[in-house]
Amino acid sequence: MDLLDSGDVFEGIFVSEALRKTTDGGAWVRAMLAAEAALALAGARAGLFPLEDAEAIASVCRSVEADAGLSAEALALKARASGNPVPPLVERLTTAVREATGEEAARYVHRGATSQDVLDTAAMLVTRDAIGLILTDLDRLCAALAALADGHRATLMSGRTLMQHAVPTTFGLKAAGWLSSLVAAGQGLRRAGETLPAQLGGAAGTLASLGEPGIRVLEEFASELGLREAAVPWHTHRHPVAGVGGALSLTCGTVGKIAGDLVLLAQTEVGEVAEAPGGGRGGSSTLPHKRNPILSVTAVSAGRRGRAEAAALLGAMDHEHERAAGAWHAEWGTLTGALRYTGGAVALTREAVSGLEVNVRRMRENLGLTDGLLLAENLTTLAARNLGRLEAHERVGAACRRVLSGGGTLREEVAADSDLAAALGKDGAARALDPERYLGSAGEFVDRALDEYRTYLTERPEESE
Amino acid sequence: MDLLDSGDVFEGIFVSEALRKTTDGGAWVRAMLAAEAALALAGARAGLFPLEDAEAIASVCRSVEADAGLSAEALALKARASGNPVPPLVERLTTAVREATGEEAARYVHRGATSQDVLDTAAMLVTRDAIGLILTDLDRLCAALAALADGHRATLMSGRTLMQHAVPTTFGLKAAGWLSSLVAAGQGLRRAGETLPAQLGGAAGTLASLGEPGIRVLEEFASELGLREAAVPWHTHRHPVAGVGGALSLTCGTVGKIAGDLVLLAQTEVGEVAEAPGGGRGGSSTLPHKRNPILSVTAVSAGRRGRAEAAALLGAMDHEHERAAGAWHAEWGTLTGALRYTGGAVALTREAVSGLEVNVRRMRENLGLTDGLLLAENLTTLAARNLGRLEAHERVGAACRRVLSGGGTLREEVAADSDLAAALGKDGAARALDPERYLGSAGEFVDRALDEYRTYLTERPEESE
Amino acid sequence: MDLLDSGDVFEGIFVSEALRKTTDGGAWVRAMLAAEAALALAGARAGLFPLEDAEAIASVCRSVEADAGLSAEALALKARASGNPVPPLVERLTTAVREATGEEAARYVHRGATSQDVLDTAAMLVTRDAIGLILTDLDRLCAALAALADGHRATLMSGRTLMQHAVPTTFGLKAAGWLSSLVAAGQGLRRAGETLPAQLGGAAGTLASLGEPGIRVLEEFASELGLREAAVPWHTHRHPVAGVGGALSLTCGTVGKIAGDLVLLAQTEVGEVAEAPGGGRGGSSTLPHKRNPILSVTAVSAGRRGRAEAAALLGAMDHEHERAAGAWHAEWGTLTGALRYTGGAVALTREAVSGLEVNVRRMRENLGLTDGLLLAENLTTLAARNLGRLEAHERVGAACRRVLSGGGTLREEVAADSDLAAALGKDGAARALDPERYLGSAGEFVDRALDEYRTYLTERPEESE
Amino acid sequence: MDLLDSGDVFEGIFVSEALRKTTDGGAWVRAMLAAEAALALAGARAGLFPLEDAEAIASVCRSVEADAGLSAEALALKARASGNPVPPLVERLTTAVREATGEEAARYVHRGATSQDVLDTAAMLVTRDAIGLILTDLDRLCAALAALADGHRATLMSGRTLMQHAVPTTFGLKAAGWLSSLVAAGQGLRRAGETLPAQLGGAAGTLASLGEPGIRVLEEFASELGLREAAVPWHTHRHPVAGVGGALSLTCGTVGKIAGDLVLLAQTEVGEVAEAPGGGRGGSSTLPHKRNPILSVTAVSAGRRGRAEAAALLGAMDHEHERAAGAWHAEWGTLTGALRYTGGAVALTREAVSGLEVNVRRMRENLGLTDGLLLAENLTTLAARNLGRLEAHERVGAACRRVLSGGGTLREEVAADSDLAAALGKDGAARALDPERYLGSAGEFVDRALDEYRTYLTERPEESE
Repeated sequence: MDLLDSGDVFEGIFVSEALRKTTDGGAWVRAMLAAEAALALAGARAGLFPLEDAEAIASVCRSVEADAGLSAEALALKARASGNPVPPLVERLTTAVREATGEEAARYVHRGATSQDVLDTAAMLVTRDAIGLILTDLDRLCAALAALADGHRATLMSGRTLMQHAVPTTFGLKAAGWLSSLVAAGQGLRRAGETLPAQLGGAAGTLASLGEPGIRVLEEFASELGLREAAVPWHTHRHPVAGVGGALSLTCGTVGKIAGDLVLLAQTEVGEVAEAPGGGRGGSSTLPHKRNPILSVTAVSAGRRGRAEAAALLGAMDHEHERAAGAWHAEWGTLTGALRYTGGAVALTREAVSGLEVNVRRMRENLGLTDGLLLAENLTTLAARNLGRLEAHERVGAACRRVLSGGGTLREEVAADSDLAAALGKDGAARALDPERYLGSAGEFVDRALDEYRTYLTERPEESE
Repeated sequence: MDLLDSGDVFEGIFVSEALRKTTDGGAWVRAMLAAEAALALAGARAGLFPLEDAEAIASVCRSVEADAGLSAEALALKARASGNPVPPLVERLTTAVREATGEEAARYVHRGATSQDVLDTAAMLVTRDAIGLILTDLDRLCAALAALADGHRATLMSGRTLMQHAVPTTFGLKAAGWLSSLVAAGQGLRRAGETLPAQLGGAAGTLASLGEPGIRVLEEFASELGLREAAVPWHTHRHPVAGVGGALSLTCGTVGKIAGDLVLLAQTEVGEVAEAPGGGRGGSSTLPHKRNPILSVTAVSAGRRGRAEAAALLGAMDHEHERAAGAWHAEWGTLTGALRYTGGAVALTREAVSGLEVNVRRMRENLGLTDGLLLAENLTTLAARNLGRLEAHERVGAACRRVLSGGGTLREEVAADSDLAAALGKDGAARALDPERYLGSAGEFVDRALDEYRTYLTERPEESE
Repeated sequence: MDLLDSGDVFEGIFVSEALRKTTDGGAWVRAMLAAEAALALAGARAGLFPLEDAEAIASVCRSVEADAGLSAEALALKARASGNPVPPLVERLTTAVREATGEEAARYVHRGATSQDVLDTAAMLVTRDAIGLILTDLDRLCAALAALADGHRATLMSGRTLMQHAVPTTFGLKAAGWLSSLVAAGQGLRRAGETLPAQLGGAAGTLASLGEPGIRVLEEFASELGLREAAVPWHTHRHPVAGVGGALSLTCGTVGKIAGDLVLLAQTEVGEVAEAPGGGRGGSSTLPHKRNPILSVTAVSAGRRGRAEAAALLGAMDHEHERAAGAWHAEWGTLTGALRYTGGAVALTREAVSGLEVNVRRMRENLGLTDGLLLAENLTTLAARNLGRLEAHERVGAACRRVLSGGGTLREEVAADSDLAAALGKDGAARALDPERYLGSAGEFVDRALDEYRTYLTERPEESE
Repeated sequence: MDLLDSGDVFEGIFVSEALRKTTDGGAWVRAMLAAEAALALAGARAGLFPLEDAEAIASVCRSVEADAGLSAEALALKARASGNPVPPLVERLTTAVREATGEEAARYVHRGATSQDVLDTAAMLVTRDAIGLILTDLDRLCAALAALADGHRATLMSGRTLMQHAVPTTFGLKAAGWLSSLVAAGQGLRRAGETLPAQLGGAAGTLASLGEPGIRVLEEFASELGLREAAVPWHTHRHPVAGVGGALSLTCGTVGKIAGDLVLLAQTEVGEVAEAPGGGRGGSSTLPHKRNPILSVTAVSAGRRGRAEAAALLGAMDHEHERAAGAWHAEWGTLTGALRYTGGAVALTREAVSGLEVNVRRMRENLGLTDGLLLAENLTTLAARNLGRLEAHERVGAACRRVLSGGGTLREEVAADSDLAAALGKDGAARALDPERYLGSAGEFVDRALDEYRTYLTERPEESE
């Protein structure tokens, strides 16, 4: 058994098969071949050589990928000489074209391009496909969050600041917050995916070897691939790559926050959510009581890795002159990792949210843990109408202190102060201490988040529907 | 002498006085007071209390900043109790309002808000002002680069890949590449600056203590400050902050690349650019030959620091529940640093580029360093018309090898091969080896970058002109 | 009011006055002057010039710091010309020596050194002082943790994995784990502090202008300052700085973990620890029930910032040739920040731990939250002795399922299965379900951590006792 | 063709086959099995079960790795349920033991351990092996650098600060500086490799299920594997992992600086070094003059990636309670990447340095580029003996200005000032302007670095010789 072939024992935990296939060595090779095919067609359309030769090249590009000589691992080893896989790939492609069609067409392979043209363009194609997959999961996660926000609009729970109970909120608003931030991340990712530029500049960015029709070739090249046409070659101007890094990083951070909240809500002492038990996930035969939120935990983990890789993209724009002496070469694997782990984080969070068990009863019970104290502010406000602000503040404060030092609930301690009770009037204390009456604009915020989400859906490009 | 007061012995090297003032403790205090003033006005407009009380609060907010009790350092020390400077500021403000206007207005200070509402909103105000300053310098840098691109459209120089001469290019195209990437950074920074949201959610994001008119207050609050109105409170959904981090990081990377190229071009052995000698910068009394590119060096340095701070913003979206237990508190200084050093990097690069001495003669001389070899590709292409591709390749290759092993220039070695010379025809070798004739689309790329820049100018919001 | 002077409105929350003073502009200026004084004495001792001139220089170095012309902020502005503060400092110092002693001594100021020699050496001096302060707090934190480990050796609590209750542990073991990791961090920090090298290489690392006695000067220089003598100048070999970064980062991570655990234990639903209420910290007038763990929260925050700065030191070793064109300049402020925030994180954690209220009762109550299920593993093991492994596993599993589906406690459900109860024997179930009997080696681990800590104390250098 | 199997098209460029095999999924599986084998033997030796059962388990651990059911990729997919690959591995191992030996031995598989015990211990084993490989290359690189330092002790070249010529130095000193920093990195890596601890704590760090002999099992376990015995379980105290991260990061930074310098020295305009042309590396068929320093470039690139991964290890110590909810899971792949790319950076730099062509002539020529100006300082010092400091400074300064404004060399301009020439005496100017006479302590520094290196060699543990 060749253990090198046996691959990675961890990545499959975090990254889906589909996303791995979309970004693996084979996918990169296919993308490089797609760039070579488009280059040939563009050159022909710009009049540099006969279209039939270009079509022959394009045809070989489509068929050649099944060729063992082009296996990703083999290419990598041959690429040690040049420092990138394009020269051995072009060599292999040229041979294949020569064998298929003859010397003439072979002369036009890779015409006018430098390795970086092909590899950067391939990077954009791989990125586009991967972002497409990520967005599909992200949009599903949005839908699941929207359902939670809508369905739990009236589900009371404790709002927690610095990990302490603060005032009541709703689980609907919590989900609406998650949703709103994810919509923002989705918009950024969409924009990043829609503005990926083709790269074509030749050896040092002048397209010199294409002669006069250079720009024409660039136009046809970008158009053939459905990529944006940059004003100038961006061989060492890496905002397109860094921009993708920024959008991926923001996505990781957004789903990481959601998954992190789920882990906190699933704590044994909190118990307000649990992941769906299906598929044997999260269970333990020796510790039967455990319901590990394993999807959320692995989502947090994937988000951390994706963020680190994405940050490395953003932090590596220091490319020298017309081709960088190291910074460029470090991008390829980093971009691959950033796409994979971002996608993993999104997909795992989606799976966690989709099957989430929400324990409305525990939410309500936890809300009562402080014996009503988290409504003291409301009580004071209401009592002040009759007692004046100062006295209200004093009497409510005294009642709170009695609760904290082991007395009854706040409601009982209010009742024990007849002046305070009188000031609040019949049912006044009950109303003041009813968390449902102290939710402020929670419901309206839910509506706003859902509206925003609907707008996001509307703006979605047709092809991804 | 109180050395703590003596401040920082390094920051002034990298960051302008203006930008430091816009982001220092005083600026943050002013921004927090502006948020409190807007909050009071918004509450009154939403009908919560009389407008005259709100106006009294706003008036005190404007005057109170001269108050020694509100010095930034003093506030920081008082803020150790609560973990953020808003509670001591509100306490001081309330006292000032009480003294100025009486108890009634004092009751409405900070009404409905939590500390994070005020601090996040202040962060957006400080960010807006700082981005404004940064964009002013960025736009000036764009103008300087555009002038270089335009003026040096025909200035020949060597294109360098992996730090090796590759093929000829122009200094105009080099500047156009810098310009195009900076326009992209400027667009990102503008967008970030224009979409900064106000924060208003109350203790846990429900605006509970504002009662029914909560959303109305939010609308008035955002409108008063000219900030965007977020769909829901973003206390723990940090995409607004992370987005700023992304835009700043990209800006740092972009100017860092430009400044880095300047350092490389200014090397003693290259000598193609030098910074303006004015102001005693970069000179050395003991080493009289030195012309250190000190602006570029400090720009690179500022860019590194800005990028690190900005990356920390992007990487810290893991805020728990309704208020983070640490991640939020780490933002304030990080954001300040990110704004300062990004701005420093932009301003220093602008200063370097504005006074740049371009040594056109050295560019031309360096282009000749390889005795014409960097036009070998062109020679082969032209010779192939008469000799056929194979023989052309062979004969040109042989001539190149003679050059490399210490023979003459490529032109001389071509002349020494009479068949090759004949194939190229009269003046053919001279033309093939003329770098001006091997610039491909360099000029058109310059035009495209300048067009793109003009569009960017047109899209500039009126107020920043 | 000059708001720039008003300083920072945040840093004082996280960093002590003492540590700020040890690392502020004044401290850096003093350290640079100490380096200049040592350089003069070393030169004289090596025979380059009269000792009395050197002593005159050293004397001025000690007195000059009170000089307004040397204020840190003013130096920074003058430093814009050279890119670092040493040239204006040397200029000012030379003038002061000339005024105090005459032209002769003035000639020997800064003799043989380059700016980086002085600034790097000053950095090591500032670092040494700051690490000393940090270690004092770190050692106090160790002592507080050791007391917790020792005192709570038998305090039962729930061990939590993936935030879920797993099996019982003790608070003593929890504290012992914190202690053991902090001892490791302390060892690293000590080692870093004890191996800081002096820097002396002259313009490009050859000490050329010192002539023959160069190495002798280096020896005297390092010896005078009590710094290590490096084999060669490390102007662009930054392992000394990166090593400090690594030690600081590890320290931040270690205390960040401790503070993070405190925040989690202080959650309203968990309530197992609380920070001491003194000094108004963490309280809230409107939310009287809140006991925010503000020291832990700000410690987490400081740890994040310290880690980010320290990481930047480790990641910036790419210094070119004999002096870096940007990477060096970025170190100064980054090192300052790394020292400050690491120290802040340590000091805040120490304060949190020192006053910690440990709620032993809540720990015990929480341990019972799963109705005994977290001892199921133990029950199975004991029952298997009589029932055989398979049947034991089945019967215990069934009892657990009854508990989870709303039955009684595990003890009750065991009693309900008479075969299982019989197999466990009289008192068997009670003993199997007694968490005190399922603590394994917890006590021994506590002892081992305390032993390790005692060894660490013994190894402590005398001066820091 | 299954393209997922086709693997990575980039990694092979940067990482050796040997290092990849040492850290791939198969290596991790083997390491986990080695941990399980050691655990069984340790349990038996501590008296928990018969030694023959333990030996049966250990025997199956050694043979089972050829089992297709244990392929790394397959394990990863099964690991999605539990979030880590240990549970499916233990399940498979238990079945294999049962089939091989019967039910009795199968009961003792994984006895007392939690998944993290096995995975953390495996991580230390993989790390130890990988560090061993990295150190082999690092030591070879040291040897190559020592040879350069020794052989080029007298090779003159220009010292460069901020990329500008400063004063003369030697290539020997340059290599000595690289060597000295690499020795420091090697020491750190050795120390890290020698102090890796075993992990054994059971479900929550108490070893509860092992009963009384827990510590004894831990001792035997660590001893069997040759790992250090930690005082307490370090499940969530990650200094061992972070420490490795620090050592790897420092190694990456150190070789990155060396490789970066090589790239700069190989620039077309500098031409002082070139990589060996063998193996087709760095050449270009279309650009025959190019000699790309491809080993150095890919070394820089690998160093960047290794540093990013290592930094992520250092920055992720925030593990909650007794097992982290995400931070732990993110370590596995990050550690793998950090080891791989650090090793790649070291090996590529070694290859570059080993075959380095040093162009002594170009070094000498470049030294003359400033027409002697970089010895002006020396000239002034010598002239001052007769002219007095002030006049010497003035006359030399004037001569320099004549050089810079297009006059002759500094030697010629000195000759043109008869007073200055006379002051310098016969041959005085020639000697003052002879760079060989202005090398200061360069030679001694080389000796010191070589001495330090020899000490490092002596301290090398025997097994690695």
